[in-house]
Amino acid sequence: MKGEFEFIQYIKNSYGFNAIGDDCAVLPKNSDFDLVVTADLLVEGIDFNLEWAKPEVLGHKALAISLSDIAAMGAEPTWAMLSLAVPSSLWETDFVKRFYEGWTALAAEFNVELVGGDISRSTERFAVDSIISGDVPKGLAITRSGAKPGDLVFVSGQLGGAAGGLKLLQNFIGKDLNKAETAKLIERQLQPTPHVALGRELQRSKVASAMIDISDGLSSDIHHICEQSGVGAELDASLLPIDINLKSTFEPDESLSLALNGGEDFELLITVPEQNVSLLTMEDLTRIGVITSNINVVGLTNKGRRTELDSSGYRHF
Amino acid sequence: MKGEFEFIQYIKNSYGFNAIGDDCAVLPKNSDFDLVVTADLLVEGIDFNLEWAKPEVLGHKALAISLSDIAAMGAEPTWAMLSLAVPSSLWETDFVKRFYEGWTALAAEFNVELVGGDISRSTERFAVDSIISGDVPKGLAITRSGAKPGDLVFVSGQLGGAAGGLKLLQNFIGKDLNKAETAKLIERQLQPTPHVALGRELQRSKVASAMIDISDGLSSDIHHICEQSGVGAELDASLLPIDINLKSTFEPDESLSLALNGGEDFELLITVPEQNVSLLTMEDLTRIGVITSNINVVGLTNKGRRTELDSSGYRHF
Repeated sequence: MKGEFEFIQYIKNSYGFNAIGDDCAVLPKNSDFDLVVTADLLVEGIDFNLEWAKPEVLGHKALAISLSDIAAMGAEPTWAMLSLAVPSSLWETDFVKRFYEGWTALAAEFNVELVGGDISRSTERFAVDSIISGDVPKGLAITRSGAKPGDLVFVSGQLGGAAGGLKLLQNFIGKDLNKAETAKLIERQLQPTPHVALGRELQRSKVASAMIDISDGLSSDIHHICEQSGVGAELDASLLPIDINLKSTFEPDESLSLALNGGEDFELLITVPEQNVSLLTMEDLTRIGVITSNINVVGLTNKGRRTELDSSGYRHF
Repeated sequence: MKGEFEFIQYIKNSYGFNAIGDDCAVLPKNSDFDLVVTADLLVEGIDFNLEWAKPEVLGHKALAISLSDIAAMGAEPTWAMLSLAVPSSLWETDFVKRFYEGWTALAAEFNVELVGGDISRSTERFAVDSIISGDVPKGLAITRSGAKPGDLVFVSGQLGGAAGGLKLLQNFIGKDLNKAETAKLIERQLQPTPHVALGRELQRSKVASAMIDISDGLSSDIHHICEQSGVGAELDASLLPIDINLKSTFEPDESLSLALNGGEDFELLITVPEQNVSLLTMEDLTRIGVITSNINVVGLTNKGRRTELDSSGYRHF
């Protein structure tokens, strides 16, 4: 079997499932709105580790990563479902109750209603499938496929922090995990913030031509935009908003690598036609490059040297 | 932690999630239709066994059980998502490709479009979360909560076959699995048929007051209707349409027990006000009892003796 992205493309092409391939599927709802919907599966031992994350924190994260997909379409979240596979040993504890406490606390912030889901026993591992839907004004979801050569590339917030936090958790590499900077990196990994308000603002202002959330990593996610839009991109390493706590904790080369290829920052990556840039009123957006007509080629200029940036973010297969 | 049904009730009550508690959630879509949506999680080693089921068969079943929930609301299926947790050892084979072949073959029959989902690696076991949505004329979904004392209870098809098939697969109890009768029981377990057309017909004819699909087992699912409707029921064992292949393979007592408590028949269980019974034009429906005002009490009369029927169908916890 090929890689996961190639396999998804194979399914899409083989059966003509054309709604597949963005952060959310966009489906007709009524005369005013489209419905967007997405699912995110998190598996113990692969996507998270119960030694690191309290159940409340895991509940928060399961919803946050799905809310981020809603944000990346410019949509407003509405309802959600949760499917849990629970080993008996965890069912006997207050784990599941606390998981829902973390989930519902974040859901209340975003007015998300839990409408269903499923609970199954599992033999060894905990897993959660987080399903969420939202509404977006009809025909106006911001997809991955609208980028045009000449558009400028912007990213929200700071990059690499979540991957830095994961590295600290995985390796215990002689860093003090209670120091303010390392604690903040770990919080970025465990308790991400979905940028729903920013996504909505970008949708309402109609300034962006394409959008994706950075879940796999910048190098992969810019490639996703390029593939879906039939374009290329040139990025400038000196412009990247590398997480300040990452820079104070890791060496410069490693910080850059984590900012480029580390996943789970859940920042928004957008492309903006040049004539719209003056309309960008949102704070916390940084210009990092430009879209080109060089299909599927992403260049990175670093200290005067240009290299091609592969899709090196996270993939399961 | 309590049982799974009690836990779901706890979540529903604690947070006021009132859409929870039927085969599907019913949500507003547009001026003509409501949207229904449901998720079913199947975990290897708990809900299925890879030694018994080919990947195509598993793909069929994952969709069939969700289609059955759509049928139980009287809805028309529209779109679906699939989240798969896949161990590396399976990814290396054609397992996932064949799983989708089984899924898409059934999806084509029912005009279901795959619009998204997720793929994650897992450490040991395969799992699938099957999400499906449908449309139903506004305000006219058939829920579990509409049964009234005096309504008659009907069931489609035959009962207990799927549980009989499971018993044969689990125990190899000295039966010839290639005999026509046993092969049919095993097929009922592995490759269930969702009754979408019957569900639609019942919705259009407006004859039923409540409906559920028999996924956990008749004894549990009649209790679900009673709880949601605030009623009781009296069933007559002599009227139960016990699977003919079950009767020819197992002893009478075991056949009755499997028909009452065995899950996964995916037949439709409906309640019909007496004045509507003459309007029931569907073949293959059998009257098995009556709804009473004896809240949450289900009686079963067998050979002149009445006992109370507990909710003894399948539950994960």
